[in-house]
Amino acid sequence: MPEFVAVESSPTIEGWYTLHEVYSLDWARWRALPPPRRAAIAGQARQWLEAAAAGRGDTKLYSVVTHKGDIMLCHYRDSPAALNQAELALRQQPLFEFLNATYSYLSVIEVSLYEVQAVAMRRLVERGLKRGTPEYEAAFDGEMETQKTRMNERLFRDIPTQRYICFYPMNKRRGEHVNWYALPLEERRMMMRGHGVLGHKYADLVTQVIGGSTGLDDWEWGVSLHADDPLQFKKLIYEMRFDPASSWFAEFGAFYVGVCVEPGSLGALLEGRLE
Amino acid sequence: MPEFVAVESSPTIEGWYTLHEVYSLDWARWRALPPPRRAAIAGQARQWLEAAAAGRGDTKLYSVVTHKGDIMLCHYRDSPAALNQAELALRQQPLFEFLNATYSYLSVIEVSLYEVQAVAMRRLVERGLKRGTPEYEAAFDGEMETQKTRMNERLFRDIPTQRYICFYPMNKRRGEHVNWYALPLEERRMMMRGHGVLGHKYADLVTQVIGGSTGLDDWEWGVSLHADDPLQFKKLIYEMRFDPASSWFAEFGAFYVGVCVEPGSLGALLEGRLE
Amino acid sequence: MPEFVAVESSPTIEGWYTLHEVYSLDWARWRALPPPRRAAIAGQARQWLEAAAAGRGDTKLYSVVTHKGDIMLCHYRDSPAALNQAELALRQQPLFEFLNATYSYLSVIEVSLYEVQAVAMRRLVERGLKRGTPEYEAAFDGEMETQKTRMNERLFRDIPTQRYICFYPMNKRRGEHVNWYALPLEERRMMMRGHGVLGHKYADLVTQVIGGSTGLDDWEWGVSLHADDPLQFKKLIYEMRFDPASSWFAEFGAFYVGVCVEPGSLGALLEGRLE
Amino acid sequence: MPEFVAVESSPTIEGWYTLHEVYSLDWARWRALPPPRRAAIAGQARQWLEAAAAGRGDTKLYSVVTHKGDIMLCHYRDSPAALNQAELALRQQPLFEFLNATYSYLSVIEVSLYEVQAVAMRRLVERGLKRGTPEYEAAFDGEMETQKTRMNERLFRDIPTQRYICFYPMNKRRGEHVNWYALPLEERRMMMRGHGVLGHKYADLVTQVIGGSTGLDDWEWGVSLHADDPLQFKKLIYEMRFDPASSWFAEFGAFYVGVCVEPGSLGALLEGRLE
Amino acid sequence: MPEFVAVESSPTIEGWYTLHEVYSLDWARWRALPPPRRAAIAGQARQWLEAAAAGRGDTKLYSVVTHKGDIMLCHYRDSPAALNQAELALRQQPLFEFLNATYSYLSVIEVSLYEVQAVAMRRLVERGLKRGTPEYEAAFDGEMETQKTRMNERLFRDIPTQRYICFYPMNKRRGEHVNWYALPLEERRMMMRGHGVLGHKYADLVTQVIGGSTGLDDWEWGVSLHADDPLQFKKLIYEMRFDPASSWFAEFGAFYVGVCVEPGSLGALLEGRLE
Repeated sequence: MPEFVAVESSPTIEGWYTLHEVYSLDWARWRALPPPRRAAIAGQARQWLEAAAAGRGDTKLYSVVTHKGDIMLCHYRDSPAALNQAELALRQQPLFEFLNATYSYLSVIEVSLYEVQAVAMRRLVERGLKRGTPEYEAAFDGEMETQKTRMNERLFRDIPTQRYICFYPMNKRRGEHVNWYALPLEERRMMMRGHGVLGHKYADLVTQVIGGSTGLDDWEWGVSLHADDPLQFKKLIYEMRFDPASSWFAEFGAFYVGVCVEPGSLGALLEGRLE
Repeated sequence: MPEFVAVESSPTIEGWYTLHEVYSLDWARWRALPPPRRAAIAGQARQWLEAAAAGRGDTKLYSVVTHKGDIMLCHYRDSPAALNQAELALRQQPLFEFLNATYSYLSVIEVSLYEVQAVAMRRLVERGLKRGTPEYEAAFDGEMETQKTRMNERLFRDIPTQRYICFYPMNKRRGEHVNWYALPLEERRMMMRGHGVLGHKYADLVTQVIGGSTGLDDWEWGVSLHADDPLQFKKLIYEMRFDPASSWFAEFGAFYVGVCVEPGSLGALLEGRLE
Repeated sequence: MPEFVAVESSPTIEGWYTLHEVYSLDWARWRALPPPRRAAIAGQARQWLEAAAAGRGDTKLYSVVTHKGDIMLCHYRDSPAALNQAELALRQQPLFEFLNATYSYLSVIEVSLYEVQAVAMRRLVERGLKRGTPEYEAAFDGEMETQKTRMNERLFRDIPTQRYICFYPMNKRRGEHVNWYALPLEERRMMMRGHGVLGHKYADLVTQVIGGSTGLDDWEWGVSLHADDPLQFKKLIYEMRFDPASSWFAEFGAFYVGVCVEPGSLGALLEGRLE
Repeated sequence: MPEFVAVESSPTIEGWYTLHEVYSLDWARWRALPPPRRAAIAGQARQWLEAAAAGRGDTKLYSVVTHKGDIMLCHYRDSPAALNQAELALRQQPLFEFLNATYSYLSVIEVSLYEVQAVAMRRLVERGLKRGTPEYEAAFDGEMETQKTRMNERLFRDIPTQRYICFYPMNKRRGEHVNWYALPLEERRMMMRGHGVLGHKYADLVTQVIGGSTGLDDWEWGVSLHADDPLQFKKLIYEMRFDPASSWFAEFGAFYVGVCVEPGSLGALLEGRLE
Repeated sequence: MPEFVAVESSPTIEGWYTLHEVYSLDWARWRALPPPRRAAIAGQARQWLEAAAAGRGDTKLYSVVTHKGDIMLCHYRDSPAALNQAELALRQQPLFEFLNATYSYLSVIEVSLYEVQAVAMRRLVERGLKRGTPEYEAAFDGEMETQKTRMNERLFRDIPTQRYICFYPMNKRRGEHVNWYALPLEERRMMMRGHGVLGHKYADLVTQVIGGSTGLDDWEWGVSLHADDPLQFKKLIYEMRFDPASSWFAEFGAFYVGVCVEPGSLGALLEGRLE
């Protein structure tokens, strides 16, 4: 029987709120429209998409593989209300008459502060400074500021531009025996560090955007991977699965894979062509 | 193998019954109406909402983020029959022709009596009284009355007025090994007290309304959090997750996040604008 | 690792078969009918409901709180075929054109024989008789007959008349460690006795009807609670949850809460008024 | 931690492939047809049902209790392709325009070979033969042939003719601790023998048809019980639940209970009368 | 409590991406078309199917047994974008107006490298070479090349041509006690080798195509079995279930069984005849 005691939580800092929305298209009704009407509606949708991408935050559209949906919209905004306004704006589009929502997910981009600290400390070691010396302490404070600023670039970034997206929600397990939230902070940190090393190994091939969603949606995180070679999604997640942070503690929801469609290619997509 | 014995239950006192209702709007059919017809229906709905908020209890409307719904209604009333009457009244509204129910939850606002006792005891300590003295006993009785009255203000309160709501149902785990309902009352009380301290820390930022729903709906509690800064939902629930009452014992249902819409802004919402 | 051996089962006696049916009403289409047409259909439905209640067994109608449905019908009949005939009769009603089935549950009212024995024995103790004496044995046989007859009144009873109903299905857990069906009969009996004492405490406030459904529907029991004060549903089930028969062994399905509507008030309900 | 080793599997012999199909009927649209049109369609459906029952294999129709469906079709055929052809034929029926599939299940009637061996051995004991003697060996070979032929009658039988059917799918548990497929063959055989004794006790009241569906459908078996008294479904399955093969190892899906409707009574059923 | 450490992952090589799509057909609306219109649409669909099969990769169509769907399409292509284009092309077909997607699954054909190594080593033993000798080393390198080429034929193969298909997704268990991803590579390899021996035993009767889907879809693998005798699906999977790689570690999703329909027989299928 475990002891039921509190452990230290891991502080985080947050950036854009993110919304992933998946819709299926009613192709039969859509194709029943006369082509000029389809072209007009598609043109309006393209303008809406361009405007959505141009405002504060970012918006991109993906063509979804499998029947989970036809299109996925990914939005970054500065509040849930702004995301809600993006939803409402789409709902006023003539194209929306042909869309049915099949999934969506709300989260906020997050970085854990001990990750910031860890990066700062690694940099000092690289510069040859010794822990405990006054030079180290002064440099550490400077590095922390630098790293927080650098994190800011990650927290308030644009949506990555690679061709493929893979989105999935996940939890850390709270089992009756194996329970992430009952582990000491240091043990969690060590596992996340090993996990981060693996992610780093794929950094040139896969861009990760981690959204925290505890208290915002049904899982604790919503993860977006972006890559030009979709095989790297499998390679990365499969390799991570043998890492204890995943093998013992990760619980996964559904996976959504999509192909990025620029606003200028939306018209073609709606005529059945992936450009 | 655990011993299968009964433990003491925790007495509670109850206030308003609460109903959270989530609906999606059929935007395509709604937008197909001529604008004056939409305006007329929206006007009637506004009047219904104002009347619902003005009667015995309270009613508020929220615009829901994500595809889980478009609007959420939150009602406080003095009986399930009164809540049922609120549902029936909405169903006679012309707007209802465009609404589809996607979720709802019935509960009754509750406070546990040992929380009342705990508050009374804390107050006496603050006043410097010593347990076991006749002064203490007399003061304790007085404090109990005061606290029960104060609880009454929580049990029969209006819906909090912050901009964001976060609603979710939850259970205490009854696992084969880790089982809340088999723990001694004192052990549960200590965990809930630690949990309460965390909630207290956020009291200025987040208002919590706890609805008990054992025997009324599919989970044991329905929790509403109200805040002007929605990031506090994540901060609060994430920090609590490392607390044993959550890490070992909490099971969560779906989370619904919404933005409050005053009756006067309902018309704008139905035209796609969140004011 | 447990030993995999058979234990003695608990004999039961059965009465009426019961069916709980939940329907949502298509209010938009219903309200689109001209009022006289609605009145005519509602009148026919009222006659059907009165006839259903008057035949062999019983039928009552409830207005359901939450979106799980609009109305619930509860039927007691002497066979599944008779219940099926009740379903078929409703499906020929003009009102059925506006109803969509959202849930239903088949069970048969049951009393366990060791409960009958336990009641008989308790009565003899109350009469001051000593176990093992010839007077006791003779009286026991008489009591058994009396109790079986009394049970018959419970097995073939009418639907209780209180204003509120709470229906839910449940199982006894068959976990890998905690497994009701692997416990010796005596251990199960002791737990059920403690459980029964709790139920007895609420007997004046809540009438329980236990339907056995092993081999008939998806859970092992369908439980109906009937009370004038719906808070007693929460009080009873919450207090029971700390009892080992619930804390370790009960698994619950969805809960349906409804308000009784007499045939004469069906017309008002269909116009949106709960009388 | 268990040892991860292979155990001996239990050989089986197979007969007819079986398909159980459940449909709901769109009563509103059906009843909107003029009565003569309904009569004509029902007549065609009756002919289809008679032809389906007359071909190689068997087909029967049941009226389903509860909202899980209105009718269930049970087919026995010599291949999945033949069952697929039965589905396709129904889909060409005018009645199909009013049917919506709610469930179906594919399996193949199976008998385990060690059951055949066990029956053969029991018979020799009844004839007073001693194991190990040449007379026993010769008689055993003869009995095996006899039993296999007798099993053939069970493997390629017609659908039992009792009034009620109870269909449900099930698995044997593969838990992290309690795992049927990791038990030695002899231990499984002993439990199945005890289980079989219970089934035998009910043999006059309940006919069981066991369909194996590993690799064919979502559970490992699809079980059909046939009885004139539906209470025997509950009695049999409830009593079995205290047997270790069920208490520790059985996992159950949904239960479907139906009342047999002869082709000549299909017209009445479609007018709302169960004959 | 297990130790939370990383273990070595198993390298894999990948071939075609695969998509299995399941659709139900709206028979009522389809059959309401005049026969010449049906024939014209079916003719176009046949041409589309022939073209899809003729391009880079492969496409086959199956008639699905049970209500899980009416048809299943299986596609092999060189990227998820190419599979998405196949989906989009079908959506422009007039037949699509009558189809509703009920399921689909994305994966990529994979072979594990240690399987390649194991085959190479087995071949050298068959040729009588002794491990550790220079002849062995030279021959091993040659065998590895040969085997990788041979694997290539499996990785970029056409869809097997047997009459029946059985598709199902699966995971390796990551339980709190029994956890595949926490086992040492050697232990996993030994179990997979035993598993492979079983598969090999059925090689003449069942062709297996293993698709890896970690990071691509909701399970870790999508398995297709192809056989002329569908009983072999049951025999193979049932026998494997007693193997530790299945008994302790396999978790299965839904099973889809279909009968292959050549493009020339699609017209007949759409008229209700399985040729």
